[in-house]
Amino acid sequence: MELKTKFLKWSAGLPVAMLNKKTATKMGVHTKDRISIKTISKYPKEMSTVIDVIGGLVKENEIAVSSEIRKRIGLRSGQKVDVTLAPIPKSLIFIKKKLNKKHLSEKEINEIIKDVVNNSLSEPEITLFASAMYKQGMNLKETIYLIKAILNSGEKLVFKNKFVVNKHCVGGIPGNRTTPIVVAICAVTGLIIPKTSSRAITSAAGTADVIETISPVEFSINELKKIIRKTNACMVWGGALDMAPADSRIIKIEKMLKIDPEAQMLASIMSKKLAAGSKYILIDIPYGRTAKVTKKKAINLKRKFKYLGKYFNKKIDCVLTDGNQPIGNGIGPVLELTDVLKVLNPKEQGPKDLETKSLFLSGEILEMTRKAKKGEGIKLAEEILYSGKAFEKFKQIIEAQGGKIKKMPVAKFKKNISSKKSGNVSQMNNKKINSMARIAGCPLDKASGLYLYVHIGDKVKKRDKILTIYSESKSRLKQAVKFYKEQKPIEIKK
Amino acid sequence: MELKTKFLKWSAGLPVAMLNKKTATKMGVHTKDRISIKTISKYPKEMSTVIDVIGGLVKENEIAVSSEIRKRIGLRSGQKVDVTLAPIPKSLIFIKKKLNKKHLSEKEINEIIKDVVNNSLSEPEITLFASAMYKQGMNLKETIYLIKAILNSGEKLVFKNKFVVNKHCVGGIPGNRTTPIVVAICAVTGLIIPKTSSRAITSAAGTADVIETISPVEFSINELKKIIRKTNACMVWGGALDMAPADSRIIKIEKMLKIDPEAQMLASIMSKKLAAGSKYILIDIPYGRTAKVTKKKAINLKRKFKYLGKYFNKKIDCVLTDGNQPIGNGIGPVLELTDVLKVLNPKEQGPKDLETKSLFLSGEILEMTRKAKKGEGIKLAEEILYSGKAFEKFKQIIEAQGGKIKKMPVAKFKKNISSKKSGNVSQMNNKKINSMARIAGCPLDKASGLYLYVHIGDKVKKRDKILTIYSESKSRLKQAVKFYKEQKPIEIKK
Repeated sequence: MELKTKFLKWSAGLPVAMLNKKTATKMGVHTKDRISIKTISKYPKEMSTVIDVIGGLVKENEIAVSSEIRKRIGLRSGQKVDVTLAPIPKSLIFIKKKLNKKHLSEKEINEIIKDVVNNSLSEPEITLFASAMYKQGMNLKETIYLIKAILNSGEKLVFKNKFVVNKHCVGGIPGNRTTPIVVAICAVTGLIIPKTSSRAITSAAGTADVIETISPVEFSINELKKIIRKTNACMVWGGALDMAPADSRIIKIEKMLKIDPEAQMLASIMSKKLAAGSKYILIDIPYGRTAKVTKKKAINLKRKFKYLGKYFNKKIDCVLTDGNQPIGNGIGPVLELTDVLKVLNPKEQGPKDLETKSLFLSGEILEMTRKAKKGEGIKLAEEILYSGKAFEKFKQIIEAQGGKIKKMPVAKFKKNISSKKSGNVSQMNNKKINSMARIAGCPLDKASGLYLYVHIGDKVKKRDKILTIYSESKSRLKQAVKFYKEQKPIEIKK
Repeated sequence: MELKTKFLKWSAGLPVAMLNKKTATKMGVHTKDRISIKTISKYPKEMSTVIDVIGGLVKENEIAVSSEIRKRIGLRSGQKVDVTLAPIPKSLIFIKKKLNKKHLSEKEINEIIKDVVNNSLSEPEITLFASAMYKQGMNLKETIYLIKAILNSGEKLVFKNKFVVNKHCVGGIPGNRTTPIVVAICAVTGLIIPKTSSRAITSAAGTADVIETISPVEFSINELKKIIRKTNACMVWGGALDMAPADSRIIKIEKMLKIDPEAQMLASIMSKKLAAGSKYILIDIPYGRTAKVTKKKAINLKRKFKYLGKYFNKKIDCVLTDGNQPIGNGIGPVLELTDVLKVLNPKEQGPKDLETKSLFLSGEILEMTRKAKKGEGIKLAEEILYSGKAFEKFKQIIEAQGGKIKKMPVAKFKKNISSKKSGNVSQMNNKKINSMARIAGCPLDKASGLYLYVHIGDKVKKRDKILTIYSESKSRLKQAVKFYKEQKPIEIKK
């Protein structure tokens, strides 16, 4: 049926469409049914969406759409579109097959990913897929299909240079912001490091959230190429690149639910690294009691990454690192960037643990790519960091991205938390610390988060400051304090 | 924060709330965050909801809410409410615990159900719960906690009469509309049968959808009591009674995803039968290749129902019936009611299979309650049905509910499907037949659906009519025909 487009002045964060009651009746559409919207032209663009609302603000023969739909198929107000009832996506059957512990074929996984990209699957349906992957898991064959499907759903970067490197951390450790430091150090040596990062899924901040405090992070593929040509590197948000659009949609749901199924994690990492043209990839797998993975699972993950590396003919190394506590002091976009800048700037003193870990990871990459001899990677990384060359490189990359290092904003409200007794810090719960920072407003309120004054093993006296909570709103601050009191993320033993 | 209520003229089918950008910033609320809305009074009413949209149609210091929220806490336009950021519901942790194959305690299940009722859990979060139950399952202990939690979340009916009976079918068989016939027969004998039914979850129609074609089905507890006092029985929609509000919300999601986890099915059935004050309960479990359950699972379900009956001190009998094909000819609300009326009316001839099954189930109930001697239940049921007394009782119940038997409407469009070859009907796929009826518009378009001219074993000649598809819209009719051609729900063998 031909309908006239009307725009909703909304940002719902997802496609929303409305129909008039009479139009809906004519078409046989009920609320929560799926429709297909197609532009009328020689080369029509099409997308599916669920009808959220019938009645209300639209006239007969109109369809009201949110900005997500407008952008996706490039509509102008009043433009005629062809709207039809869309069939139930076949991929829902495959999702249930997975839920029933069956293996999926390449064709079936392709179909699911295609429907994710087309928006043919609703949020609860993608939830079902994520939860099926979460519990039933996928074998390596299925994971490879998933990687290929996600990879082929989007754009790719191609480099002639042999030394295209990349790093990735499986995440879960608050404050663990090594990427900007590692990227800067590696880029100094001439390595190409097109780092695309995600925004936070379950944590307080992702690298993209952190860099965004001083620089744009959303670019087209062509803009990205220019930045890399100029500086050897970049630090951008992968989601904006349309390099793995299926992944972005799935991650959005996972974020909401705070789950991160292994197959999807592997596929997400691999597809993005492959799309970025990486030939050498270093994977950081922090393990520990409250990390994302246990030691056993870390070893298992390493095995899988190695297998995938062989399959896709890339050099992949994995390092298993200590994930028993946060790294650095700041947790939250602005607070983490402050730590990073202090480590990079030779005139300042950054958190030692963050510096040590960044040097270690850089050293690994320098050895993998033969920029340094076996056993001499860390030494070379130190030279680059302490000479200020890494800081210069970092500034160059930020400038090339149109950003600028500036004075960091401070959140409107803060609250100091002190120790109620003397003793030693015995435990720090990563998950609870992440949750607390998110309650304070992370990652969206850039200056919100936590500043830690202690790490495991530190001695504290009664009334010593343990941490400061920063927030842009009183109610969030109050809730974060309440969470701290109830959940006790930091344990002190006499 | 105190905000002024504004109404959205929407029926989104779920609570929707919008805030102005400035208000959201002040409160620290981001899209997809949860808020709590509380009336300002001595006895405040409160509910949670997710903020769907920031910006758009609301002014500063206003909150726009959909009719679902308005009704829930009884708001008037312009009314001041207290809106605060709501904490992440603890129950999400328990849902993940289940997803991780752990057992849940009574307290944890209570917390989940409480949050479902309060609307503190979003649709994807409830999806996660449904999918965790679907795959990990729940043991009988957890199922009992779930039953109690759902039961205690709502209203209950209490009868002094000893002979309060009920029946239930686990579903999955198209056209299997025995309830109105069984209810009428039993009520004639003086048994009290307060039948609350659901709307379709995965099928083309539920009993509530069917009865709704000639009668209101939504009543308050008090109205219900009056109807039962007058006629011994009722046939209403359970969802409107607020007898198991948690169940209604979970079922809505399950409907969307077309999944039906066993623990939730058991809890849903038991909590509603218990809430209806039933002392004798007959459960019909049709099994077969394309039924909801296999024979093995049917036996297992029977065992569980028996256990639950003992635990809750009720007499529960289960009958395992043939679920290899649809029962009756019509599939869809109006088409099924037409079959039912023909069976009830002694002057007409209804589908024999529907009549036989209804008499069998009625016989079982009459024997359970000693209204008939062992082995003589069916005979008594036949007497009541063939004498026209059941039809009179049925009319009486419908009238008491404010309905009336009238000429049935016919759908606007139809399409006959004929056999392409001569042979015998060898298979009928219940699931595909249900899907086809749903594509045609069931259960929302009352007159849509299928009319079957054949059953398994029937001989057909080339070009014989097999079925007619009815639909209110051309596009739905077209898709149903396409589905038939692709999926071949009815097999004919030479």
